[in-house]
Amino acid sequence: MKANTFGNIFTITTFGESHGVAMGVVIDGCPAGVAFDQELLLEDLRRRRPGLHGKEDAIVSGRNEEDLPEVLSGVFEGKTIGTPIAIIVRNKDQRSEDYDKIKKNPRIGHADDVWIEKYGHVDYRGGGRSSGRETIARVMGGAVAKMVLKELAPDLIVKGFATQIGPIKLGQDEINCESEGWVPNEEKRKEIEELLISAKKEGESYGGIVEICVGNAPKSLGQPVFHKLKADLAHAIMGIGACISFELGDGMGSATAEGTQFHNTLRADQYGGIRGGISTGEKIVMRASFKPTATVMHEAKKGRHDPCIIPRAIPVIESMIYMVLLDHIMMAKNDRVDK
Amino acid sequence: MKANTFGNIFTITTFGESHGVAMGVVIDGCPAGVAFDQELLLEDLRRRRPGLHGKEDAIVSGRNEEDLPEVLSGVFEGKTIGTPIAIIVRNKDQRSEDYDKIKKNPRIGHADDVWIEKYGHVDYRGGGRSSGRETIARVMGGAVAKMVLKELAPDLIVKGFATQIGPIKLGQDEINCESEGWVPNEEKRKEIEELLISAKKEGESYGGIVEICVGNAPKSLGQPVFHKLKADLAHAIMGIGACISFELGDGMGSATAEGTQFHNTLRADQYGGIRGGISTGEKIVMRASFKPTATVMHEAKKGRHDPCIIPRAIPVIESMIYMVLLDHIMMAKNDRVDK
Amino acid sequence: MKANTFGNIFTITTFGESHGVAMGVVIDGCPAGVAFDQELLLEDLRRRRPGLHGKEDAIVSGRNEEDLPEVLSGVFEGKTIGTPIAIIVRNKDQRSEDYDKIKKNPRIGHADDVWIEKYGHVDYRGGGRSSGRETIARVMGGAVAKMVLKELAPDLIVKGFATQIGPIKLGQDEINCESEGWVPNEEKRKEIEELLISAKKEGESYGGIVEICVGNAPKSLGQPVFHKLKADLAHAIMGIGACISFELGDGMGSATAEGTQFHNTLRADQYGGIRGGISTGEKIVMRASFKPTATVMHEAKKGRHDPCIIPRAIPVIESMIYMVLLDHIMMAKNDRVDK
Amino acid sequence: MKANTFGNIFTITTFGESHGVAMGVVIDGCPAGVAFDQELLLEDLRRRRPGLHGKEDAIVSGRNEEDLPEVLSGVFEGKTIGTPIAIIVRNKDQRSEDYDKIKKNPRIGHADDVWIEKYGHVDYRGGGRSSGRETIARVMGGAVAKMVLKELAPDLIVKGFATQIGPIKLGQDEINCESEGWVPNEEKRKEIEELLISAKKEGESYGGIVEICVGNAPKSLGQPVFHKLKADLAHAIMGIGACISFELGDGMGSATAEGTQFHNTLRADQYGGIRGGISTGEKIVMRASFKPTATVMHEAKKGRHDPCIIPRAIPVIESMIYMVLLDHIMMAKNDRVDK
Repeated sequence: MKANTFGNIFTITTFGESHGVAMGVVIDGCPAGVAFDQELLLEDLRRRRPGLHGKEDAIVSGRNEEDLPEVLSGVFEGKTIGTPIAIIVRNKDQRSEDYDKIKKNPRIGHADDVWIEKYGHVDYRGGGRSSGRETIARVMGGAVAKMVLKELAPDLIVKGFATQIGPIKLGQDEINCESEGWVPNEEKRKEIEELLISAKKEGESYGGIVEICVGNAPKSLGQPVFHKLKADLAHAIMGIGACISFELGDGMGSATAEGTQFHNTLRADQYGGIRGGISTGEKIVMRASFKPTATVMHEAKKGRHDPCIIPRAIPVIESMIYMVLLDHIMMAKNDRVDK
Repeated sequence: MKANTFGNIFTITTFGESHGVAMGVVIDGCPAGVAFDQELLLEDLRRRRPGLHGKEDAIVSGRNEEDLPEVLSGVFEGKTIGTPIAIIVRNKDQRSEDYDKIKKNPRIGHADDVWIEKYGHVDYRGGGRSSGRETIARVMGGAVAKMVLKELAPDLIVKGFATQIGPIKLGQDEINCESEGWVPNEEKRKEIEELLISAKKEGESYGGIVEICVGNAPKSLGQPVFHKLKADLAHAIMGIGACISFELGDGMGSATAEGTQFHNTLRADQYGGIRGGISTGEKIVMRASFKPTATVMHEAKKGRHDPCIIPRAIPVIESMIYMVLLDHIMMAKNDRVDK
Repeated sequence: MKANTFGNIFTITTFGESHGVAMGVVIDGCPAGVAFDQELLLEDLRRRRPGLHGKEDAIVSGRNEEDLPEVLSGVFEGKTIGTPIAIIVRNKDQRSEDYDKIKKNPRIGHADDVWIEKYGHVDYRGGGRSSGRETIARVMGGAVAKMVLKELAPDLIVKGFATQIGPIKLGQDEINCESEGWVPNEEKRKEIEELLISAKKEGESYGGIVEICVGNAPKSLGQPVFHKLKADLAHAIMGIGACISFELGDGMGSATAEGTQFHNTLRADQYGGIRGGISTGEKIVMRASFKPTATVMHEAKKGRHDPCIIPRAIPVIESMIYMVLLDHIMMAKNDRVDK
Repeated sequence: MKANTFGNIFTITTFGESHGVAMGVVIDGCPAGVAFDQELLLEDLRRRRPGLHGKEDAIVSGRNEEDLPEVLSGVFEGKTIGTPIAIIVRNKDQRSEDYDKIKKNPRIGHADDVWIEKYGHVDYRGGGRSSGRETIARVMGGAVAKMVLKELAPDLIVKGFATQIGPIKLGQDEINCESEGWVPNEEKRKEIEELLISAKKEGESYGGIVEICVGNAPKSLGQPVFHKLKADLAHAIMGIGACISFELGDGMGSATAEGTQFHNTLRADQYGGIRGGISTGEKIVMRASFKPTATVMHEAKKGRHDPCIIPRAIPVIESMIYMVLLDHIMMAKNDRVDK
């Protein structure tokens, strides 16, 4: 069953195994006439790379991926032409010999065993298509969505922040759309980076929480009843590798609230900027948690594991959100006959 | 943009406004030859009705809905025939005069205002299509899914429980697939029911948490990378009216875990029975939280508000899960060429 | 597999068996704010009825169908509200006893046997869902599409004409968008009607050809490469019961043409008003042929068979075309970023 | 609006402009465990190449395309793994300078002008995405479908033949599933090849008719009411570049038939092997006509135009049919609960 296409009007179809020839995306439904910003694309790929957004190689996976994108179609003389935009990134530095023993020993905590059970015949090298490397295609799709949104919703801001990594947490009021840095608290950022450097050495790993702030989102996005904005955002984010929870606004915390208080204040924080499944025009606030990465001693010894997925997950989450928002802007064009 | 169809192979298309003529569902993709169990359908509709699963009218909305389904097509001599199954429930007891003033005064906390902003012209009576009454169609779809699953996965169990209502919580280990009752702790159930009866009188409302246990789920369900089982479940549940968070397994709690512990134990509870987006055959555990219902004094005075959505949300959640699981069983038929 | 939904943005989902409770349609994706024209809906249903568009009962099937539509949702105070519009027509005058013997004796030329082979368990009464009565739902969908098009493309004309019934043919130049009547040649119309009256008596039946003229169609409709306008039109029309061929412009005739002539004249008649899969703004011309109806002596004796499907097929074809054009107008809203 | 994906369960998403970097396809929904037959893929690409299936360079376009496919994903150790199979063919020998003048002078009969009108900004070189070169992706998709069908329907035969090129016609009884050669009549084949060689010299072009014979097709394929097999086949074939008509069985000829004769003989030839939209297990017979290629003197002088599209269209048609049949075999897996 086809399952590698995401979106309704603006869509991506992705492909590629970690140790195959290339990862890639076909973006279909992109309007013609959009300026293609190669720099933006490269920058987004760079943020997804190992090493804390490309800056600090001490942390995260030691795999050296250049991730140079090649645009195969859909762009002409610097602008989109309304046809599918295919972009690929070749896989280098594959060292697949590292993975040969996986064939007979599926790695604990990874998806190796469930894929073998499901498909019978799989590419076991480096997780194949279940590898985090699959997200390159999402980031490329998100980059193109961002290019379109620069024209359709120029003030839109989508920003993800780590608010917890293992035992280290930020306070609830430390984050807003103006915050900067992947951990928007200098002191805690340092603590976290130290924690991760030491985890990398010791073969330990941590999960964490990402909080996402969407500012200046257009109102009236969301299509009842099965494409509510909150449902499509949850689907997009829960579909990312290690993600195992999603909260809008107060999320789990709303369970304890009393209705008279909750609704009278009407803070967008509580609702998360979405009511009736439709964006209100207020700030959209979401949180997602990620499992600790599956630590494999074999990899850890070679210094090639990610002690925490969060730094690399942030640009992926942002990409998914850009795509959902653009798709909904395009869907909303047919909401009313008089517009 | 069409947005009222849910599912990929087994699908429902739903329609109906709270105070329109009827609510309805068209189930498309149901195989031929399934015994149509009218009793099961009626029982599921009964559970969704006001008054704690039809038993205690003191709690929840005073609206008296009979909800008698009429099957219009797709069933012949007691069995499905492979064509679309359309089922409607007429709206009675509409008292739409109660709602006339909403026209000029959108109710705080409801979606009245966002719908007006989005569509310009809406049916403002009782929330129109944003009313919780929309979920009747989901329950009817879920009932038919259950009939099919009796043949395709006869041991499957899907059970939702309230584990928190406002300030009252159950312990984490009180629930499993064998638990009974909507609050599977007699003492706390009584506390909660008293809380809600008093909330109803005082015009107060509460949110809460539902925990769902899926037992004997087939393994190998889930289609990477955009129809992972966890993503489709999140989409299904986050699409229900007041739901604002979704957790799989340890959910938010996994953020604090250390990888060495998390992965070595390999408890399905932690993963929630899904790895790599694919069911492992273990128990699937999920949690969802719901906002307090929007309390409207006008309604509260007439004794017609739900002080808590949870009792009625449980059968709706279960219905959505039955449909997702069936859809995935049907999708999986084409996973391998040798099966 | 779901297969009863038609369209991409503006969609219909249809249901109903000939001798079941009701036929129906759910129209999803209709914009809010469209004036709902009940008269137009009734008139379209009337045209589809037996007896030469409701006027002459001597010809075609003697089944007396009142076909009174009931709108269940999606319309409020005379206008659409952006939610699904469900409309049903109850089946009356079923005389299903006539059909009881079909159970053991599938009718030659009908689909009874292939349905039994495919689904195992079917509703054999009157063809069940393979009955021509299924097209009621398409006509209702087309009527709503027409209401939307009155606002989005007010000058659009879609007109179908019979240009051949059995041995009687019209000349190629007798038809254009201004023609009137189902056979736009008075003399031949009379001949044809006599032929059909006599065929009805004798248990004979005829096939025929419908030519369709679309005037003032918006240009730039069609989405390469798999939703070319011509492909979507062919799909829509070839999906109607007895239709077994589809031609655009010169159709089969173009095989004999020489390119230098064909392309230099550039008559829209040749191309049919579509080039590169996209409407040019010129007149769109199509033809479709229909098999003779399957004559069943048993039915013929009771005076209840249609000696020719064409008169009733014309409004169905027009309905399908209205829906395809509207869907494409809505799809085209996202063609360019600057519009 | 996304429009470059074809199929429901087994799907292709295609991309590429004639003079861009590469043409490509992403095949999604292919089951795991299928032997990947590289030779079959190369042979199918060869048949689509200019020069009468690669054999006679005298006829058709002089463009020298090597069309070497590169498989980027989805295949491991010679077998499919259930993930998307991406295959690209780089564009060589582009001579785009030939086309520079098109920018200001859209070629008559081509789609240049309608694309500019629709999208504003287009790749005008060699037709861009409206070029016949787009069909490479379809042929690659069809080749993979064929590999799967070797396991699921090993006796299936799909064969297309030219039965008319311009003025030269074959008789109706000269073709069946056992016929050989692109024109299965030696004498007429020579006549046609001479006609085309002379047309190439003189800048003339011809349309023609392709007849397709499907032998040993599984019965019970087709999903009523909007994915009838005949409708999906018509959609698939009418979506090919210059195709402007589609006939099943007797097609247009059935208009003159008398029902008593037509239905009593029950020849599959008449029905075309499909009744009620469902395959009966008999031979499926179809015909499609193609316009003369748009002759451009500028190109003709350089000896680079195709005097007739038919030789190259045949493998494309066959590819589309293989994909439709496979998709329907996969859809049919959920027809009945007892299978």
